[in-house]
Amino acid sequence: MEPLKRKIDINCDLGESYGHFKVGQDLKIMPYITSANVACGFHAGDPVTMARTVKLAKKSGVAVGAHPGYPDLMGFGRREMKLDPEELKSYITYQVGALQAFAKASGTALQHVKPHGALYNVAARDNNIARTIVEAVLNIDSKLIVLGPPHSMIAKTASCVGLRVALEAFADRAYNPDGTLVSRSQPGSVIEEPKLVVERAGKMIEDGTVSAINGETVHLGQVHTICVHGDTPNAVEIAQILKANLLAAKIDVKPVGSFL
Amino acid sequence: MEPLKRKIDINCDLGESYGHFKVGQDLKIMPYITSANVACGFHAGDPVTMARTVKLAKKSGVAVGAHPGYPDLMGFGRREMKLDPEELKSYITYQVGALQAFAKASGTALQHVKPHGALYNVAARDNNIARTIVEAVLNIDSKLIVLGPPHSMIAKTASCVGLRVALEAFADRAYNPDGTLVSRSQPGSVIEEPKLVVERAGKMIEDGTVSAINGETVHLGQVHTICVHGDTPNAVEIAQILKANLLAAKIDVKPVGSFL
Amino acid sequence: MEPLKRKIDINCDLGESYGHFKVGQDLKIMPYITSANVACGFHAGDPVTMARTVKLAKKSGVAVGAHPGYPDLMGFGRREMKLDPEELKSYITYQVGALQAFAKASGTALQHVKPHGALYNVAARDNNIARTIVEAVLNIDSKLIVLGPPHSMIAKTASCVGLRVALEAFADRAYNPDGTLVSRSQPGSVIEEPKLVVERAGKMIEDGTVSAINGETVHLGQVHTICVHGDTPNAVEIAQILKANLLAAKIDVKPVGSFL
Amino acid sequence: MEPLKRKIDINCDLGESYGHFKVGQDLKIMPYITSANVACGFHAGDPVTMARTVKLAKKSGVAVGAHPGYPDLMGFGRREMKLDPEELKSYITYQVGALQAFAKASGTALQHVKPHGALYNVAARDNNIARTIVEAVLNIDSKLIVLGPPHSMIAKTASCVGLRVALEAFADRAYNPDGTLVSRSQPGSVIEEPKLVVERAGKMIEDGTVSAINGETVHLGQVHTICVHGDTPNAVEIAQILKANLLAAKIDVKPVGSFL
Repeated sequence: MEPLKRKIDINCDLGESYGHFKVGQDLKIMPYITSANVACGFHAGDPVTMARTVKLAKKSGVAVGAHPGYPDLMGFGRREMKLDPEELKSYITYQVGALQAFAKASGTALQHVKPHGALYNVAARDNNIARTIVEAVLNIDSKLIVLGPPHSMIAKTASCVGLRVALEAFADRAYNPDGTLVSRSQPGSVIEEPKLVVERAGKMIEDGTVSAINGETVHLGQVHTICVHGDTPNAVEIAQILKANLLAAKIDVKPVGSFL
Repeated sequence: MEPLKRKIDINCDLGESYGHFKVGQDLKIMPYITSANVACGFHAGDPVTMARTVKLAKKSGVAVGAHPGYPDLMGFGRREMKLDPEELKSYITYQVGALQAFAKASGTALQHVKPHGALYNVAARDNNIARTIVEAVLNIDSKLIVLGPPHSMIAKTASCVGLRVALEAFADRAYNPDGTLVSRSQPGSVIEEPKLVVERAGKMIEDGTVSAINGETVHLGQVHTICVHGDTPNAVEIAQILKANLLAAKIDVKPVGSFL
Repeated sequence: MEPLKRKIDINCDLGESYGHFKVGQDLKIMPYITSANVACGFHAGDPVTMARTVKLAKKSGVAVGAHPGYPDLMGFGRREMKLDPEELKSYITYQVGALQAFAKASGTALQHVKPHGALYNVAARDNNIARTIVEAVLNIDSKLIVLGPPHSMIAKTASCVGLRVALEAFADRAYNPDGTLVSRSQPGSVIEEPKLVVERAGKMIEDGTVSAINGETVHLGQVHTICVHGDTPNAVEIAQILKANLLAAKIDVKPVGSFL
Repeated sequence: MEPLKRKIDINCDLGESYGHFKVGQDLKIMPYITSANVACGFHAGDPVTMARTVKLAKKSGVAVGAHPGYPDLMGFGRREMKLDPEELKSYITYQVGALQAFAKASGTALQHVKPHGALYNVAARDNNIARTIVEAVLNIDSKLIVLGPPHSMIAKTASCVGLRVALEAFADRAYNPDGTLVSRSQPGSVIEEPKLVVERAGKMIEDGTVSAINGETVHLGQVHTICVHGDTPNAVEIAQILKANLLAAKIDVKPVGSFL
């Protein structure tokens, strides 16, 4: 009897263009990922881009998730904002709902929700923010998966209320010893060497660990999805090599919704 | 045997506040209407306002519809914009989808879609714009009703593709002889005298006609819903008197989705 | 020989409407104030409103100042945002510059700059934010006055670089014992009783003190300008009574730029 | 005695990035142009980008002008909007004023104003729009130059009120026989072959003519500035070759403000 194959999802932030402002390499990276986190108009992603991204993902067999962020287009959702729970909950509902309509119009459904940028980081550490996001998701559709980092507030909170949680690791980003990501403003925060990304992804999947920027071992535990960033200059190459290596290692690369 | 009662819906634009900017008298007018056209964030209506408006409508037994507009908060969606079909279709989908999520989170569903402001006027006369809006609505949910003026492009187009159409008349606005509304910039465009509004509504419902600003008779045909504007200073009084008079005339005042 | 008359300025936040969204009572309050803090489009105040407000102020003999805020229309600039210095400096320059053009087009010049909302509070306590704002103002026009609370970082920083500083007290807001304002979310934070406002203003001007919400005395020191809020329901009445009482007490009520 | 050298300006739209959304090749194209049209935040160009662009231009000896557009970031100012004169005038004042502050903070002053995108086209043909823009510019600073196409409403109107006008031709865009530009949605609308661009520029400068897309000759008359588009893929190459060829032809390439 064949042993069970390990399964992993590769997710990527897509649909981040805004009108005339074209960013990312969505078309080129799509073949090498299995889940797309689609921007929903607040920090990036106008409606036309959302419609196109969902269609492209569906055609490519890539599962679609919402990537809601702060209402801060000028700051790309990377600047913390102090929102009260009613505001945050409504902003999540609005953005996920908008993307749902595009999914429905394309004959598909959303697989997951992953907070974007500064909101992702705050939701990982702040219990109130985490709970607010989780409540919003639960009210919208209890079949939605929440994507978040291992040991995070949002992962725990989502799990407590019965939502499926996809635990995520970043193969192309450096880690602090406490399991948070090294800030983009620090040197060495982004890992662009494909071999290194592949090696790190392998260790994340096999051992549930990653080496922090200071050499210490960070225990992630089980990881369901690996994030690759579409805005790294060689993102397409990284994703391509990563997927090829995972497949070569007999790991099943597929949307997290299919095995969680 | 009792004769069949005539049925009419009273609709009103609600949820037009935006963050700190509070406009309208939603709470006070809610008891006197049966359908609410809720702004969806592009020309008015932030997510918090949308959430609150939908909840309030549901609690009040008022049916909820989407009121999508041009992406022009500064101009309140009252300035025509030249959008291409892909843009317009995506903007409609985005806005209706966002509101759907609030409806779902409140345990209800959208009844209708009514374009707002300049888009309403363009959709009444422009076949391409009308078709684009109708296609968007059809792709989102074929059970949605489209609200539009009698004899309009959007009413015809929606009807052709099998969508239910609620034909609308404006009891508190003056009409041009061609059946369009007198522009708000013209004197006499808004009718604030409650008795006159009631009288006009009665004629619209009974005869399917209205007197144009120059005295000519405009043939509207059958009308399913009467619009009252929430931003007229005495809007609450008008709605209250209108509803009382309709009920006194043994006309059934209820959401258009219940009888169309 | 007559003793020198005491001098005081009354300032008020104006021009906070945004397109169709009309807030405040600018026209009615204008006769009772001497300096207007005009919103500059980021948290409130569209260009048409800015143009009208500047014209109205000039006609009324009211000095005009810029009231720059966070780029957060949905939150009215009342939600803290983590901006880096280059961002904040550029946002201040942009907003003040825009208002300058309206002042120039109306044949007047800006008197002062007062940060709005959450930015006002952060600039009072955070040295980096204060310095960034002050640098922006200095680069734009070294004749501009900076408005800020006594003992604040922004007042100290502005003073250090040679800018004139107008120290401000809030007669219609409750104080914490540390000299900060009681948050609007707390009961009793806004004082609406005109007599009380007048009494507090008198004490601020005569003694340089105010009673904190817990009864302790807060030492403000010399105060150059009293802020009245235009969004208090009876703001016009408050401003009218305040001005009348100050004049009756032989205090000279005039724009701060004329005596600083 | 040396004959007088012909003089020409090369202008380019710059500063069109918006926060995280980076577009254009400002740094690379700067050495080959003499006037920069800087976006002012409405259709493109956030305040940080404006500050950087003005500094870079100043350092490069490139004159700075304002490039105000419609308030339509999602449509990049390329979609016509029906604005009333008060709105348009205020929007121009706001945008030009904001940029002026950055110019002043960098120790320079604005040279010109050039409407952007759809507004440029409307201002060329519509007398009311042209006059509104011209009035706004006149009120801001009567030393500002207005950039516009030959024979256009905006050129005539600006000239009538005594503003200096820089007549502009597009060496990298195809012309209709009536002197308007072929729409970007048409094939052949953008000319990317550098030799062809140089040839057309030469003819524009020497003869005041250009060949329309159908072969007819369009009479431009005297031209003061040639526009090169920064978003053509090989824009830098085009600008470089253009400037080199003009200099080789003993034509003086310098900011239009220096010779108009």
